[in-house]
Amino acid sequence: MPNKPFIRAISEPEISVRSPIGIFDSGIGGLTVVQELHKVLPYEDMIYLGDTARVPYGTKSPETVVRFACEDTQFLIERRVKAVVVACNTASAWALPVLEQRFQIPVFGVIIPGARAALARSKNLRIGVIGTNATIKSQAYNREILARNDQAQIFVRPCPLLVPLVEEGWTSHSVTLSVIHEYLEPMLRRNIDTLVLGCTHYPLLKKLIRSVAGKNVTLVDSAETCARYVLERLGHLNLLRGPRKYEGKIYPCVTDDTERFEELAAKFLKGNLEPAVRVQLG
Amino acid sequence: MPNKPFIRAISEPEISVRSPIGIFDSGIGGLTVVQELHKVLPYEDMIYLGDTARVPYGTKSPETVVRFACEDTQFLIERRVKAVVVACNTASAWALPVLEQRFQIPVFGVIIPGARAALARSKNLRIGVIGTNATIKSQAYNREILARNDQAQIFVRPCPLLVPLVEEGWTSHSVTLSVIHEYLEPMLRRNIDTLVLGCTHYPLLKKLIRSVAGKNVTLVDSAETCARYVLERLGHLNLLRGPRKYEGKIYPCVTDDTERFEELAAKFLKGNLEPAVRVQLG
Repeated sequence: MPNKPFIRAISEPEISVRSPIGIFDSGIGGLTVVQELHKVLPYEDMIYLGDTARVPYGTKSPETVVRFACEDTQFLIERRVKAVVVACNTASAWALPVLEQRFQIPVFGVIIPGARAALARSKNLRIGVIGTNATIKSQAYNREILARNDQAQIFVRPCPLLVPLVEEGWTSHSVTLSVIHEYLEPMLRRNIDTLVLGCTHYPLLKKLIRSVAGKNVTLVDSAETCARYVLERLGHLNLLRGPRKYEGKIYPCVTDDTERFEELAAKFLKGNLEPAVRVQLG
Repeated sequence: MPNKPFIRAISEPEISVRSPIGIFDSGIGGLTVVQELHKVLPYEDMIYLGDTARVPYGTKSPETVVRFACEDTQFLIERRVKAVVVACNTASAWALPVLEQRFQIPVFGVIIPGARAALARSKNLRIGVIGTNATIKSQAYNREILARNDQAQIFVRPCPLLVPLVEEGWTSHSVTLSVIHEYLEPMLRRNIDTLVLGCTHYPLLKKLIRSVAGKNVTLVDSAETCARYVLERLGHLNLLRGPRKYEGKIYPCVTDDTERFEELAAKFLKGNLEPAVRVQLG
């Protein structure tokens, strides 16, 4: 992280340690990241932007994902957040360098924390990564893992059906089990001992994934690892909010209507959200 | 159809029977409609707009679908098309009345032709309709069927997993068969004799759907019925292009990058497309 963002964040009169953290995602799945962030940073207020009018990002091209991610970040910065968390794996994979360069604010993604955790947990350095088509195509996890340990062997698989299966509510359905089996079988045969769940929706399938992968494979939940990484980075930047009487609030903003968001939100986040607000970007 | 659009279409110097037909869809599925249009209107040129940057529409709210559909139609009108075909069931379901009112050009959707065909083919007037969440929620098929015969009984089911399964290429996979079975079982138990495939992707699953529904259920393919309807309507409006030496050309425009579109296009349309062009709306 260069120094620039930090200097800007604390020199700007409106931005302080009391400012909220901004989090964005292509839709609703990023609430799994918000949930983990709220566990480790209970006193922080958060503004969550879900781009539900253009969801998903995981099937779109890099240029389009970067354009959307810039608009999302701009929106959060205008709301005076002290840092931006890119909860979406696809946006982290393609847009993080552009966001860091274009915006004068700390920006954190989910890929680096996931890559670090995978290496910390793997014993045989045979690591599986699953995600959307765009995340896998980006090779972002491969790059971040190999940059830290070039002895690692990485086995990837795009799993485009898992997001729709979660959104259909089939998180313990036999069809979903068959799909996971088909997706994971080839990498399990290659003897991976660690599997990165490289998409915000996948934590909701942990039970089924664990039943297919078996006890010898450690699952890396990118929401959990991202939350611990944000805690660490905000600490280094002196941007952590200290304890106070009440827990922080979570303010959701969405680009499509609020009704379906509120229907689905409870699946992804156990806890209180303020009422969602519909917003327009750009 | 009011008279206004017809008068405007032929009084506008740039628009004539030789002008292309415009077709739009949320993404790539509308090519099934283009294929059927090209069969019945082989001499017509066509401009196809796939809004691949914002696909799908079927999970979004009515307001958002209407806004996107207006932008799509505006784009085609600026390309001097003589008529607009809304190939997307969800956009037809929510946006057709707004498009007809806002734009001075003939606009045809897929719902009315599908509803008419279902009634023409059903003997027991027990009709099933499958589609995206948004199409089913709109009740557009129910309205158009009941407006023509209030004795009909209609059984609906949103099938949100079928589009991702088609796009994953699992059109003859056992998982897809299980999903179709689960979706159709309740309406088959209600003794339907006709099933409307109310989404552009579903014609690619005809074989599996037929194997689950059985021989006694007639499938209504909204792409086929829409094409015959457009032929009939353009005939009434004196907007049909007569035979010429060469077949008409199909010009695809997409809002996301052209690569993935061209990868997938062959699944949906057997025939020649001109090279796809990336465009921006609004």
